[in-house]
Amino acid sequence: MDFDLRDASNILRRTPATIRTILGDIPDAWLRGTEGPDTWSPFDVVGHLIDGEETDWIPRARIILAGGPNPAFVPFDRFRHLETNRRAEPAGLLDRFERLRAENVATLEGFRLTPAQLALEGIHPEFGRVTMRQLLATWVAHDLGHVAQIVRVMAKQYGDAVGPWKRYLPVLTR
Amino acid sequence: MDFDLRDASNILRRTPATIRTILGDIPDAWLRGTEGPDTWSPFDVVGHLIDGEETDWIPRARIILAGGPNPAFVPFDRFRHLETNRRAEPAGLLDRFERLRAENVATLEGFRLTPAQLALEGIHPEFGRVTMRQLLATWVAHDLGHVAQIVRVMAKQYGDAVGPWKRYLPVLTR
Repeated sequence: MDFDLRDASNILRRTPATIRTILGDIPDAWLRGTEGPDTWSPFDVVGHLIDGEETDWIPRARIILAGGPNPAFVPFDRFRHLETNRRAEPAGLLDRFERLRAENVATLEGFRLTPAQLALEGIHPEFGRVTMRQLLATWVAHDLGHVAQIVRVMAKQYGDAVGPWKRYLPVLTR
Repeated sequence: MDFDLRDASNILRRTPATIRTILGDIPDAWLRGTEGPDTWSPFDVVGHLIDGEETDWIPRARIILAGGPNPAFVPFDRFRHLETNRRAEPAGLLDRFERLRAENVATLEGFRLTPAQLALEGIHPEFGRVTMRQLLATWVAHDLGHVAQIVRVMAKQYGDAVGPWKRYLPVLTR
């Protein structure tokens, strides 16, 4: 499917409500459950999404739009949230993600990007030239991937409880 | 994590709202996109979840509770929905899932299952004796797995649009 700015904006706008529906008021054991050592809990994933709002997507879109001679992105720190949110409350994190995402979707829509602007390029620290269109498509796919991760991590908390059904539930062994 | 009846009920109750937040009013191309031939779209997944409400979880729980001499489950048809919903409207499917799930969670809570009842057994057509507790844990994990599937299938619609970021998005190659 080709990238569509309106679809992207609509999907990005929904993500906080999706995650709130899944995680709001859920017991802490579910929020903090992981897939094993050095893997993320649903709580950690929300922190990572917040980092994306603050340091990745819109900041990179601004670098591309600024159109300077060297539109290089600042490397994204995938582990920033683990320290930042050490003492954060889950409800506070959800509120923060919701607020940041609403601001960032409004910013994106405010850009009123033209097809020519969607073709502008920035420089990724690892794989070089990428377009605005690819950046925004990645924002969408990244959201969806992390929603999938949240529910997969939750499903795995019942990996033993399901007994012999485990073989019929690919989500438990992925 | 051990199975907990209240947690299970709470998670099961949320699933229709989660799916509606993700899919409600989304363009048809996103609802009908798949991962390739003979794989399911988000629309198909909702149909499959409806089949579970009508023929799997609560019917099997009733067979277990009835406690007859041969508490054998009726085999579940994983492809029933493909024919049933050939001409269904997405909005109608979401409404139907929401209504059925609300009824079934009310039925589950109405059972007021005791620990002894959670240990009662039924007979699965493939792997034999399973407990009520395992059946209900599977209902929960099955829900979460299919929510993960819906958003994974959506993410894959941007598998090309993300360009070189594909290597950083495991959801696109899973």
